[in-house]
Amino acid sequence: MPLRPTRDDKFSFGLWTIGWQARDPFGDATRGPLDPVEAVHRLAELGAYGITFHDDDLVPFGSDAHSRDGIVAGFRKALDQTGMVVPMVTTNLFTHPVFKDGGFTSNDRGVRRYALRKVLRNMDLAAELGAKTLVLWGGREGAEYDVAKDVHAALDRYREALDLLAQYSVDQGYGLRFALEPKPNEPRGDILLPTAGHALAFLRELERPELFGINPEVGHEQMANLNFAHGVAQALWHGKLFHIDLNGQHGPKFDQDLVFGHGDLLNAFALVDLLEHGAPGGGPRYDGPRHFDYKPSRTEDHTGVWESAAANMRMYLLLKERAQAFRADPRVQAALVESGVLELARPTLDEGETYRELLADESEFDVEAAGARGYGFVKLHQLAIDHLLRA
Amino acid sequence: MPLRPTRDDKFSFGLWTIGWQARDPFGDATRGPLDPVEAVHRLAELGAYGITFHDDDLVPFGSDAHSRDGIVAGFRKALDQTGMVVPMVTTNLFTHPVFKDGGFTSNDRGVRRYALRKVLRNMDLAAELGAKTLVLWGGREGAEYDVAKDVHAALDRYREALDLLAQYSVDQGYGLRFALEPKPNEPRGDILLPTAGHALAFLRELERPELFGINPEVGHEQMANLNFAHGVAQALWHGKLFHIDLNGQHGPKFDQDLVFGHGDLLNAFALVDLLEHGAPGGGPRYDGPRHFDYKPSRTEDHTGVWESAAANMRMYLLLKERAQAFRADPRVQAALVESGVLELARPTLDEGETYRELLADESEFDVEAAGARGYGFVKLHQLAIDHLLRA
Amino acid sequence: MPLRPTRDDKFSFGLWTIGWQARDPFGDATRGPLDPVEAVHRLAELGAYGITFHDDDLVPFGSDAHSRDGIVAGFRKALDQTGMVVPMVTTNLFTHPVFKDGGFTSNDRGVRRYALRKVLRNMDLAAELGAKTLVLWGGREGAEYDVAKDVHAALDRYREALDLLAQYSVDQGYGLRFALEPKPNEPRGDILLPTAGHALAFLRELERPELFGINPEVGHEQMANLNFAHGVAQALWHGKLFHIDLNGQHGPKFDQDLVFGHGDLLNAFALVDLLEHGAPGGGPRYDGPRHFDYKPSRTEDHTGVWESAAANMRMYLLLKERAQAFRADPRVQAALVESGVLELARPTLDEGETYRELLADESEFDVEAAGARGYGFVKLHQLAIDHLLRA
Amino acid sequence: MPLRPTRDDKFSFGLWTIGWQARDPFGDATRGPLDPVEAVHRLAELGAYGITFHDDDLVPFGSDAHSRDGIVAGFRKALDQTGMVVPMVTTNLFTHPVFKDGGFTSNDRGVRRYALRKVLRNMDLAAELGAKTLVLWGGREGAEYDVAKDVHAALDRYREALDLLAQYSVDQGYGLRFALEPKPNEPRGDILLPTAGHALAFLRELERPELFGINPEVGHEQMANLNFAHGVAQALWHGKLFHIDLNGQHGPKFDQDLVFGHGDLLNAFALVDLLEHGAPGGGPRYDGPRHFDYKPSRTEDHTGVWESAAANMRMYLLLKERAQAFRADPRVQAALVESGVLELARPTLDEGETYRELLADESEFDVEAAGARGYGFVKLHQLAIDHLLRA
Repeated sequence: MPLRPTRDDKFSFGLWTIGWQARDPFGDATRGPLDPVEAVHRLAELGAYGITFHDDDLVPFGSDAHSRDGIVAGFRKALDQTGMVVPMVTTNLFTHPVFKDGGFTSNDRGVRRYALRKVLRNMDLAAELGAKTLVLWGGREGAEYDVAKDVHAALDRYREALDLLAQYSVDQGYGLRFALEPKPNEPRGDILLPTAGHALAFLRELERPELFGINPEVGHEQMANLNFAHGVAQALWHGKLFHIDLNGQHGPKFDQDLVFGHGDLLNAFALVDLLEHGAPGGGPRYDGPRHFDYKPSRTEDHTGVWESAAANMRMYLLLKERAQAFRADPRVQAALVESGVLELARPTLDEGETYRELLADESEFDVEAAGARGYGFVKLHQLAIDHLLRA
Repeated sequence: MPLRPTRDDKFSFGLWTIGWQARDPFGDATRGPLDPVEAVHRLAELGAYGITFHDDDLVPFGSDAHSRDGIVAGFRKALDQTGMVVPMVTTNLFTHPVFKDGGFTSNDRGVRRYALRKVLRNMDLAAELGAKTLVLWGGREGAEYDVAKDVHAALDRYREALDLLAQYSVDQGYGLRFALEPKPNEPRGDILLPTAGHALAFLRELERPELFGINPEVGHEQMANLNFAHGVAQALWHGKLFHIDLNGQHGPKFDQDLVFGHGDLLNAFALVDLLEHGAPGGGPRYDGPRHFDYKPSRTEDHTGVWESAAANMRMYLLLKERAQAFRADPRVQAALVESGVLELARPTLDEGETYRELLADESEFDVEAAGARGYGFVKLHQLAIDHLLRA
Repeated sequence: MPLRPTRDDKFSFGLWTIGWQARDPFGDATRGPLDPVEAVHRLAELGAYGITFHDDDLVPFGSDAHSRDGIVAGFRKALDQTGMVVPMVTTNLFTHPVFKDGGFTSNDRGVRRYALRKVLRNMDLAAELGAKTLVLWGGREGAEYDVAKDVHAALDRYREALDLLAQYSVDQGYGLRFALEPKPNEPRGDILLPTAGHALAFLRELERPELFGINPEVGHEQMANLNFAHGVAQALWHGKLFHIDLNGQHGPKFDQDLVFGHGDLLNAFALVDLLEHGAPGGGPRYDGPRHFDYKPSRTEDHTGVWESAAANMRMYLLLKERAQAFRADPRVQAALVESGVLELARPTLDEGETYRELLADESEFDVEAAGARGYGFVKLHQLAIDHLLRA
Repeated sequence: MPLRPTRDDKFSFGLWTIGWQARDPFGDATRGPLDPVEAVHRLAELGAYGITFHDDDLVPFGSDAHSRDGIVAGFRKALDQTGMVVPMVTTNLFTHPVFKDGGFTSNDRGVRRYALRKVLRNMDLAAELGAKTLVLWGGREGAEYDVAKDVHAALDRYREALDLLAQYSVDQGYGLRFALEPKPNEPRGDILLPTAGHALAFLRELERPELFGINPEVGHEQMANLNFAHGVAQALWHGKLFHIDLNGQHGPKFDQDLVFGHGDLLNAFALVDLLEHGAPGGGPRYDGPRHFDYKPSRTEDHTGVWESAAANMRMYLLLKERAQAFRADPRVQAALVESGVLELARPTLDEGETYRELLADESEFDVEAAGARGYGFVKLHQLAIDHLLRA
């Protein structure tokens, strides 16, 4: 049974996930720090292929150049020993108090300039370690009070910043792609670019839109009670699913960062089916890293940390296995036809047909009969659940 | 006190709002039908300047050509008598059972073709009555079950449909602009293009994106607990606020369609301030119709219908009055400066500055001092509330 | 495999569920009416043991005594033929316009009196058909506007009404138990007794609290994003789970009434485990009807109606099967011990221990060591999912 | 204008509110610690009458007896100098890792015993400082995983703990009342006793229910999108509003703890009206402390902390002023009559009337006419907003 992760599965984890010390808004840390080098080895043993980080996860904020170089060298050595890669890097623009009103869109211009420098330097590190993608989560770009943030100006500043990063990557030959990570709120009352949709719209206004895509996160979209699989489908349709953050969430509440599949299981099934197989009627699959951005619960010790890391991968593989069986089942194919799911890929107009011909085509259609049609969606859905549960 | 609406305020109402008979999922109608001609006269008396409708609101579904022409003639006469205009028209693709799985994205190709014909014919009516905007609310374009809708194909079909409509408008010389109206759910479990952001992203993929914008609705965004004023600000930033639906909502629950301002009052204040004055640091105002898409509560009789219609306009004018005082107050201007709100309009880089110069500029910035800065947002927000409450 | 429902499973359905004609706030009916007699036969064939109804579901509103008696006789005959029972009856206090501001708590005293008469008469019918439970869903008891409902007086009136019903049942010897069904909103903006907790608190203030319990519904609690299994556990703890409504929902949005298990699957698993086995450390099981209060989706025809009815029972039986395996697995038992789940049933104080002894007992406890303990919850949860998925 | 707070307003603040150092899940502290003695003096100057604390807010966790006594003496001196009182004390059972799975309901019995000792000792301190109320927020009593907590056993343990506390208070002659503070989630995925209703139900099962009430918090109920004013009205109806936490929130998201009135302004108006005047038809007012449990935003410095503290009191007084005018307005009284709001206080049955007489009374009532009645709720609500805005 293919439930043992391999490098081909492209599973990656953030250093900040297994390394989370479990400090929350109401409680102190319950676990000690995790050495990044140990993280590389442990994840490799568990079957992951990649590790990612914020600059400050690897090199503590304020380190001098010497310390930085030593840390990076040690980390690279661990990568070499294990064959682990760094497919993505991201920048911390949220922990230090200086970012309390944002990074690229802080009301303080000095902060905005500082944030840009921090990201530019981190791009050097990203390139040095071979990362292909730079994720940008603007968790502090937002406001609690509507009158306290000029959103129009903020979007101008956001664009200015992203255009500069892209210019830098091109000039330096880094070949990076940038993935915006939306979130509706937390830690700010309202965050700019709150959903996958807002980020997809925004990036089209950039100088080099082709370099920008999104990094949607399961929990972030579900915090707005949006359908995550739908959002990912739209991102794929735009050709903009550059990266993905997998985890679990129970609807509109604080950001839970549970293990993938430990939240809305049915939607996780639909997601894995989409990522692995593309849309039923055809369309791109996702071939990038399956990146887990989760937090081992505060009740877990270090043993629980690694068990939860393994659980993410197990859940993905279980869902993949069930989705494969679902797709392969002739009853499912028949039900998809009966429900019209596959018919939707057929254009509404015939090839070359114009609206004149369409308008003239009225006679054939029986509105009442079409209104009475049963689509059989519940039967189809039950088939999906039967496959999920191996019933 | 300017709380009496005039035509210059550009207030408009949907026929389906004051005409709602108050049938809800658990209850029968509590009010009889409203004659569209009476609606025109009553709204004109109350101070509105415009009225809008779905095709079926004005001309009952299934009417023959003769009946249709008679109804339209009578309606036009009322418009002429009152000076009321029809700034916007929209099409009903949701009431009849034939649309139960959608219009443009139904799994049934016959339904898709029928939906297109219905909208094309309605565009003739829109043009005939001088409408400038066609709103498209795809309330049935969606699904309850993830496996029952190929979202990738659905977006293809959506695009195909909208491209055809635009072609038709251009060919006929109708000069219409199209405004997509997002909604996250209800009546479908999940609706495609669930938020303003998703619709803004989508429309960029159309053949004639310049003809497409959005028609965001207060309650629809708030059903996903998103900040409506933020969403409108982003739409304005994209130059895509083609129309707006004003009403009230109490967060993530069924679509309440309360009177404007009767839901989240503070966000309504920020919204009116933005529409009337643009962003604090500059940016476009909204000069289109202030369109109320609300429902007079089911507990109201016809007297209550007109009182609630008047309440929408009163709320808007009250908020406008308070926003004007807020903007004009020197203490507010000082607080905006202190909070850095106005500084955000200043580019982060100097004119002509490159990233090289930015990177070299590190010495000047004191991270800890900047982290200790107080932004004074609470004081600023309290000033806003003081103006709202005229304290 | 025990996935074929039998009478011993105690599955029941409301007439209004399979009989729903699929009229929603934005659309007309997509299905014709269902004959109650046919409903009885079809449900019996599918394996249900019971059928329930609102008075008006069986006997149309306004029927005269003769019609009523004929309908009831025909219905009873179908029950006799099939062996189906009527374990519960409920009263419609929400469809007719007269109830638009509530039944027992309408601001109109005449309405309140009318509502009481309607329920009293329905109790006669309930008793006549052998029902043991009267469910009371006060869907119209609420408000859209905070100033429009005196909640204090409303609770007084609610109590007055319920005390009267109980008195009547006792006097007539009907032996009914009453189950309050909470819901946070829809159709009213806010409904009184919005959650299981509020209803449990309220019923303690009644004259005969022993006759009152609750009828929680999956979707209603999840509309407030509350954990349904937790709510049911608290109801069981109070000895007040008199009835239960099973269905599916996707978090805070309109009331979806999906098939049971077609919403939050993991929570449904926990629920069935609780109902069937009681709490892990002991505690009452639920032995009443497993009542499905769902709506066949509007996209389904009559075939889909019966498929969806069957899907409810299949989901329950699947979850029951998996929960049994979960409980029986020695690894699960070991994990429960390791996680301390079973230890929670042990009192915190020793038998006879006083706070003096407890206070003196400080020396033994190592706070830091206890803080470092790993609870292994993720491992336990993954075991549950493995059983659910039969991995 | 009575907007300057005085001691008669009974405004109190938690030490942890103005003393919050603004560490959040994604960011480090932005402010230094606040000396409790300074807090007393500053709050007194601003017009507050009381200060409250968790044990660890005043006496750092792990302090020895000598340090503790010194701190308490200094604090008491400040109270004496200013005339400030300590109306309420609460216990921190959430910050230290030992409580990561709860205090009274931790799966670890040693933790449960430790938690009890901590609260018992804190009760000594509460009594020493003259507190009348002990608030119990069980923020860690809950779970992330349904199988990881035996809710039935947990409620047994909760009851055991509370019964012991009450026994101790009675035995020591402390005269304390206990107020349970509900919250649906955060920091746990699901917290036990998630709403005001659940807590009200639970406390009736205690040995001394008369000593227990609730301390509802604006934001906590609104995190479940419940109507806070309704919840408080039900608590008053039960005679169980023992204390109250005032703040602001924007619906279902993380716990924002904004300034009171800076969230849902209309509901805050209704709340203050209820607390100050009781229900429209009569009923108890609230005469306890108006306690602000908010967090000065992370973007504020110490100046902003005190401005935000003052803003809480200003908001309350503004709302009180407007509510007084609302109640005193003859037009409002007329509208309340027209809407039937005041009629709801009249019993549904006449004095001495039985159900027999009620059932016989059918002839008088015209169902259709009653269904057609307009309640005028929108007009009434607009009047309330007009008073709120002083329009």
